[in-house]
Amino acid sequence: MSWVLRAEDLPDLARGATLLGTGGGGDPHIGTLLVRQVLGDGAITILDPDDLADDAFVIPTAQMGAPTVMLEKIPAGIEPTLALRTLEEHLGRRADATMPIECGGINSMIPLVVAAETRLPVVDADGMGRAFPELSMETFAVYGVQGSPLALAGERGERVIIDTGADNRQMEWLARGVTVRLGGVGHIAEYAMTGEQVRRTAVPRTISMALRLGRAIAQARAGHADPFDAIAETLASTLYPHMVTLFRGKVADVERRTEHGFASGRARIVDGTHTLEIEFHNENLLARRNGSLVAIVPDLICVTASDTAEPITTEGLRYGQRVTVVGISTPDMMRTPAALDTFGPAAFGLHETFAPVERLAPYA
Amino acid sequence: MSWVLRAEDLPDLARGATLLGTGGGGDPHIGTLLVRQVLGDGAITILDPDDLADDAFVIPTAQMGAPTVMLEKIPAGIEPTLALRTLEEHLGRRADATMPIECGGINSMIPLVVAAETRLPVVDADGMGRAFPELSMETFAVYGVQGSPLALAGERGERVIIDTGADNRQMEWLARGVTVRLGGVGHIAEYAMTGEQVRRTAVPRTISMALRLGRAIAQARAGHADPFDAIAETLASTLYPHMVTLFRGKVADVERRTEHGFASGRARIVDGTHTLEIEFHNENLLARRNGSLVAIVPDLICVTASDTAEPITTEGLRYGQRVTVVGISTPDMMRTPAALDTFGPAAFGLHETFAPVERLAPYA
Repeated sequence: MSWVLRAEDLPDLARGATLLGTGGGGDPHIGTLLVRQVLGDGAITILDPDDLADDAFVIPTAQMGAPTVMLEKIPAGIEPTLALRTLEEHLGRRADATMPIECGGINSMIPLVVAAETRLPVVDADGMGRAFPELSMETFAVYGVQGSPLALAGERGERVIIDTGADNRQMEWLARGVTVRLGGVGHIAEYAMTGEQVRRTAVPRTISMALRLGRAIAQARAGHADPFDAIAETLASTLYPHMVTLFRGKVADVERRTEHGFASGRARIVDGTHTLEIEFHNENLLARRNGSLVAIVPDLICVTASDTAEPITTEGLRYGQRVTVVGISTPDMMRTPAALDTFGPAAFGLHETFAPVERLAPYA
Repeated sequence: MSWVLRAEDLPDLARGATLLGTGGGGDPHIGTLLVRQVLGDGAITILDPDDLADDAFVIPTAQMGAPTVMLEKIPAGIEPTLALRTLEEHLGRRADATMPIECGGINSMIPLVVAAETRLPVVDADGMGRAFPELSMETFAVYGVQGSPLALAGERGERVIIDTGADNRQMEWLARGVTVRLGGVGHIAEYAMTGEQVRRTAVPRTISMALRLGRAIAQARAGHADPFDAIAETLASTLYPHMVTLFRGKVADVERRTEHGFASGRARIVDGTHTLEIEFHNENLLARRNGSLVAIVPDLICVTASDTAEPITTEGLRYGQRVTVVGISTPDMMRTPAALDTFGPAAFGLHETFAPVERLAPYA
């Protein structure tokens, strides 16, 4: 069902999107400021994928870059719409809607900025079902939509179009190079597709899910209920039904570096003699409890504050924080062999084999 | 006057273009192989700028990258024409002719490859009057033509369009980033312009000059005449009238490094207790004789074999070579304050002030 989003929904949406960002995706709170600025007391139509005509033309929009840089380099606001317009002009066709490429982090907000500026609706779906670090890691690509041509816009009005045909990894490689030269952040429009392709390749209803998650956490806090129970209950009726508590402890060590446009590193969380180690590359990729694997990409590994269930990004991790780490199962369409080829462990150079979090860590 | 170029002209043209490359510009001999392959026994029309209609549409084509990489990574041959076609498509207008962006090195050849493939004529003019390392360093830019939009093609059919408006340095910066990610070499079409703009902004008749220089050297050798006299005589009737012998000696030391897509370094040539030091950044930038400046960019500093006057590129410099270094004056349009802002010493981070080679080293 399509619905309407207003400025007052943004804090809950941001909270849910941070959870789904699994440590990465950039800080959506900066995104909310951008949306607020353009939206005012207006409204954005969030289109259910089922309400899209088969031949409707959808152009997803997003920000590209290292989350650590995004924190310091706030966009001017015009770039994502400039990227959309550049791609429209190149393709000779106007978009009927925009859509997120990922439902985690700041990229849950960028399409809303575009929607508020252009009055286009936003499709309630995305191409990652979480956040991933690379543009080639999209369910759109897994199920046959081509990322090219991609349009990229910079804060000084730079416009770049990249067409690598069916080679989405080369598209990512070249776009990343341009983004680095733009100072670490660019805005993009890519994976232009029809309504029929949206229904076939996108992870559905992830905007509404993020909003419900963020709202459930807030309501639990207000009602002195357990926010983790609220998360689990909310997820139960979605395509992400399993939530597992992987660890509760104190952040003992965080090591991070920004290189080649990515933020990578590891975090260590301890509880007495027990340890959880997390490796991340923009997003959290795997978690080992006392040396044993308990969750691995593409399943969600979410670090949250133990008292409030507020999600914490990798750049927000600090020594001494008391955190609860939860694992969340991803939809079946993200766990097929083709999907795992695109964004499973091997795509990140990890040697571990994917196994569902509900099987690896069934002790919720 | 327009004229016709055939395969048998290529060796002389390559020799002249290597001289005008002032050490850089890539090896035109590789370019001749590419042209031969496409041209066969056909012919290419070389259009005199005066024969261009005011509203003719000209799209210059070139190769971009570090000469050291170009030696190892020979293009597939389709890329320069793909760049031209990509820009035509983007602009919605077919080119009436192509043109070199520089008259030195391999980029004297790339437009001929395009011409042989497309049957377009090549304008007898260029945008550097020599070779320069950056796309922003063009007389086109100095006299008001905008480099953007630029089209860039890679060997796997990648197509990139970059539009930075009037900011040609940002265009260069982004295109260089893409070129580096393509493995160090890309092919481009940029500075699309009218016939009127060609006459106003290009250095005229540099293809014919390169051919005459190369031919004069060959004929002097064949006739046992002094090839350096032949060069000086040929130049006397051009926009490059002054040739000065800066040094004769033996290469004692060459230091070069390829970084960020450029080949930089310095060479030291000795004769007894006398020394000539050359600094280069793709091309030779300045020459100091016993510590005193004797020639500086944009004037030409050409290293040649002492016995044959065969020009030697910086990557061809070897310990022990006996070389004669000549300085050649550039046209007045390349020595104006606006031109020096764009490609004079300060544009390369040099602290020396430009002075004409015929004044710095008048002891020819």
